[in-house]
Amino acid sequence: MTIQVFGHKSPDTDSTGSPIAWAWYLSNIRGEDAKPVLLGEPNTEAAFMLERWGLEKPEIISDVEAGAPVVIVDTNNPAELPASVNKADIRGIVDHHKLVGGLETKGPIEIRVEPLACTATILYKMMGDDIAQAPKGVKGAMLSCILSDTLAFRSPTTTQEDKAIAHALAEELGVDVEGYAEEMFAAKSDVSAFSDAELLRMDSKEYEVDGTKLRVSVLETTTPAQILERKDSLKESMKSVAAEDGADEVLLFIVDILKEEATLIVPNERVKGIAEASFEKSVEGDTLLLPGVMSRKKQIMPVLKAA
Amino acid sequence: MTIQVFGHKSPDTDSTGSPIAWAWYLSNIRGEDAKPVLLGEPNTEAAFMLERWGLEKPEIISDVEAGAPVVIVDTNNPAELPASVNKADIRGIVDHHKLVGGLETKGPIEIRVEPLACTATILYKMMGDDIAQAPKGVKGAMLSCILSDTLAFRSPTTTQEDKAIAHALAEELGVDVEGYAEEMFAAKSDVSAFSDAELLRMDSKEYEVDGTKLRVSVLETTTPAQILERKDSLKESMKSVAAEDGADEVLLFIVDILKEEATLIVPNERVKGIAEASFEKSVEGDTLLLPGVMSRKKQIMPVLKAA
Repeated sequence: MTIQVFGHKSPDTDSTGSPIAWAWYLSNIRGEDAKPVLLGEPNTEAAFMLERWGLEKPEIISDVEAGAPVVIVDTNNPAELPASVNKADIRGIVDHHKLVGGLETKGPIEIRVEPLACTATILYKMMGDDIAQAPKGVKGAMLSCILSDTLAFRSPTTTQEDKAIAHALAEELGVDVEGYAEEMFAAKSDVSAFSDAELLRMDSKEYEVDGTKLRVSVLETTTPAQILERKDSLKESMKSVAAEDGADEVLLFIVDILKEEATLIVPNERVKGIAEASFEKSVEGDTLLLPGVMSRKKQIMPVLKAA
Repeated sequence: MTIQVFGHKSPDTDSTGSPIAWAWYLSNIRGEDAKPVLLGEPNTEAAFMLERWGLEKPEIISDVEAGAPVVIVDTNNPAELPASVNKADIRGIVDHHKLVGGLETKGPIEIRVEPLACTATILYKMMGDDIAQAPKGVKGAMLSCILSDTLAFRSPTTTQEDKAIAHALAEELGVDVEGYAEEMFAAKSDVSAFSDAELLRMDSKEYEVDGTKLRVSVLETTTPAQILERKDSLKESMKSVAAEDGADEVLLFIVDILKEEATLIVPNERVKGIAEASFEKSVEGDTLLLPGVMSRKKQIMPVLKAA
């Protein structure tokens, strides 16, 4: 049976590109039978990456069959994976997020988690010298993953290893890092095709803070004005998204990649309280500007307080 | 704060030697402040290893403090770890067992699990060229771990990597593998100092099979007669151990390392039923001989059925 390699349910560049890279390695270097699949429609940046490097869009699956061999990359959170994941035959996990518990395997398998900015950086290290045999498309996907997750090295999650490996890949591909990253970010910034509810769920994680259930959404963009001009309807949509998803509030952070700052939308008094308690600033109006804030993992989640 | 490195609550050779090896690496190569600790008294083989390589017995701790930095080796099972482990600051996990779920970390950390016979084999790979700097005691401990977990390469869990690394360590140390392994197994086989209840809990894992709670105990020995002559009192002790530990039955497998076979003690009709259903043999009397069976992980757990 073919091993299905996938990331999480909201395929961004890393969760689209890393399955492609790792399925190539499993098939062509380790001699296994593996293919990348997606758990949803790739976001606009991931779609740009596929197009740019001439990669086929992986098949989108909605669940996995019991006993089916799978390898999981870029998450270890059952909530971000197919409903039947623990009934599948999990053969490997490669990730760079905190361990949340909940995944179970039938026997000892290969698991690699490292505190790096990007899954593709870990995959590159695991591939060792075999990376030389990878086709351009695989290397291009891996470079795209690292530039995406590090916001071209601007994010505080960036490590020396992410940087060094991205530069090595770019050099071999003859790609200008800053120029290519700009193209990627422009693709990510074009969100005109998405509804408000889609925007709120596009890059979103559920967290419980002091008993309050939050949906913490991030939109990374080079053109924040394009999103902020939809602020009123986004605020309206937050109510129904929260209700449908069983959350108490939706926190939407619009990250300006170029200015290196985030704007939090503040739709009501409870979010105002959360924002003031978490970021120790007073909120005037319905937005809060957070200079230097770019990373949910490093700069938002660790400080969130429920007011 | 010093990082405490530990294995599971029933310290065998791997759960005693691997913390010593990894704490050496963290302190001397990575420049962190780490020390090995134990979660219980080492077994007789582990005690022999400490003595043979002039290693100090690590301090035994009963729990960990909230926020204390820890690194876990040789298990990822909260049931085999200190009660407060999820309140500690887990900094790393290195293991070769199936993922059971339940451990949680505050951020992304270093996790390495591989389907190899021994934790020390994984540690050796992680150390890379730096292993050359390890003192004899650390290398001796790592060799002991591999010989113990592979039963000197007789166990079906043994991989080519375990074997190659053990031979590399033995050669550098000038140790005759077979002769040294015999000494280790003789130390493990001397169980005269232990009560029946201690024997039943010495190398034991709890498993639930089809709703039946089993304590599956293994005693690896070169002198099975020494244990079998205590059979009647062991059978008696199984009742109280099961009752105290909340298990329905205790299954004791006496593994003859040299003959490469196991003897299961059958104290009652329910264990007889489990034995016959699991191993597809009929039981006469109060023991069942299982030729070739040496590994709980590979040959016992996967076939257990609740009758």
